[in-house]
Amino acid sequence: MVDPVIIGTVALDSIKTPFGKVDDALGGSACYASLAASFFSKPGILSIIGKDFPKEFITFLNQRSIDTNGIVTGDKTFKWKGYYEFDMNEAKTLDTELNSLLSYNVEVPDQYKDAKYIFLANIDPELQLKVINEIKNPELIVMDTMNFWIDNKKKELLETIKKADILVFNDGEARQLFETPNLVTAAKAALKLVSKAVIIKKGEHGALLFTKDKHFSAPGYPLEKIKDPTGCGDCFGGAFTGYLSKTKDLSEKNMRKAIVYGSVIASYNAEDFGTERLKNINMEDIEKRFDELKSIREF
Amino acid sequence: MVDPVIIGTVALDSIKTPFGKVDDALGGSACYASLAASFFSKPGILSIIGKDFPKEFITFLNQRSIDTNGIVTGDKTFKWKGYYEFDMNEAKTLDTELNSLLSYNVEVPDQYKDAKYIFLANIDPELQLKVINEIKNPELIVMDTMNFWIDNKKKELLETIKKADILVFNDGEARQLFETPNLVTAAKAALKLVSKAVIIKKGEHGALLFTKDKHFSAPGYPLEKIKDPTGCGDCFGGAFTGYLSKTKDLSEKNMRKAIVYGSVIASYNAEDFGTERLKNINMEDIEKRFDELKSIREF
Repeated sequence: MVDPVIIGTVALDSIKTPFGKVDDALGGSACYASLAASFFSKPGILSIIGKDFPKEFITFLNQRSIDTNGIVTGDKTFKWKGYYEFDMNEAKTLDTELNSLLSYNVEVPDQYKDAKYIFLANIDPELQLKVINEIKNPELIVMDTMNFWIDNKKKELLETIKKADILVFNDGEARQLFETPNLVTAAKAALKLVSKAVIIKKGEHGALLFTKDKHFSAPGYPLEKIKDPTGCGDCFGGAFTGYLSKTKDLSEKNMRKAIVYGSVIASYNAEDFGTERLKNINMEDIEKRFDELKSIREF
Repeated sequence: MVDPVIIGTVALDSIKTPFGKVDDALGGSACYASLAASFFSKPGILSIIGKDFPKEFITFLNQRSIDTNGIVTGDKTFKWKGYYEFDMNEAKTLDTELNSLLSYNVEVPDQYKDAKYIFLANIDPELQLKVINEIKNPELIVMDTMNFWIDNKKKELLETIKKADILVFNDGEARQLFETPNLVTAAKAALKLVSKAVIIKKGEHGALLFTKDKHFSAPGYPLEKIKDPTGCGDCFGGAFTGYLSKTKDLSEKNMRKAIVYGSVIASYNAEDFGTERLKNINMEDIEKRFDELKSIREF
């Protein structure tokens, strides 16, 4: 059975950083998220590609137990071209070709409709909402977004957030969406919209979890060599949801663990270009880094 | 006995934030640091004031068991005027009157020379070095600095750092001094200069401790209402050194606790203008927030 269902983009990314470059690599929010989730569960992707999409990429996803029956084929694949400068904190976009994404109107295959866990990775909030409405009886809806939708579809974005159980976004987006510099204030505002929890991703500084009466602060993993941070946020959300769908425990305590697994996989992802690093880590590597994160926060 | 000895500025601060303002309030790196240290130990200040310095400020410091015999009196007190904008992250300076600081050439009173712990709060690195040379047999030298000295006295600053056991600075200063965006890289470079440890203060994101073979990540306390962040970094360093001088345990494990106490007192300090908040907290408040920081990092 497919779980979690992940909607998001599947893309061909061309990325340049101070440490090298890569052209037309497998990318997109749904790819990163499902690869991260696949360490824990058997995700299925809802997305669109083009006729130009390399078949070996689909084969690779399937080898990782990712169901791709929810990926439809349009004309040309969504392409993103960007670079990172010296500080590696912010991706600069050189070119975006939306291509087939422009006409995408998600259809959920029957075999996805019984899924209990949904991860709404970054994509148009109207498409995210459509998925929520088509899954029969979800137990947990985790939602990510990005500044583009805050700028361009804020009303639709807020409507979708109100249907989510857990909102995952980064510190800049939290400040922007709730018009406050204070992350605690932003998180409390967000908590009024969702049913369960708010997670704020802070890159190298870790992540924060806010529930109605508790707060958790996950440390960042001290990475010295960051080659390409593309997709780290998607990995975080995918691993978080994947771990919860595996353990079927939605307690605050287990969400804390899920966040740390999310951080671990995101930290590995930054160590190489595109999805390369995720290809050669296993559960042993993940548990090792999980334990390291335990030891660095002990006092 | 006076311990730790703290050199730094004693100032009259005029501060404006979105939440109010204050004029000619007690401030300066040595004041914040010694008030923070005074919760744990009996610090003594090395600094200079002017004839205009209100006597009641000295009385207040003495009431907190802070020795002020190392404070000499020159012409006029150092004055700083600044403001914080909406985001409260960065102080903007309106006016700096160095006044008596310009002619300050620290003299260490005899009764300070047997101190075992030194906190070199932010001040000219040449004065910091002079203190190191005049204390007879120190067990621990903790050193803070700021971007001004990186810009204007980098050579002297590096000379002084080489005599310190623990360097405490903020993330921006770490990146600037070692010319790298990566904090792990900056910390490793700094570790080559000092004998014991490097601490990077990250404001709301907590603090990092690096020793030769270990790493600790302290969570930030989730503050919703920040009135005035002036002096938080000084409080952190002062409390850190004060706690170590009280416990006389320089193990990495105890340094972790000292960092958390530093974070606790810095977080209280931000809740009101100038040193106001530090006047009405006690050890019970401090232990309460220490325990809260334990619970928010548990997984």
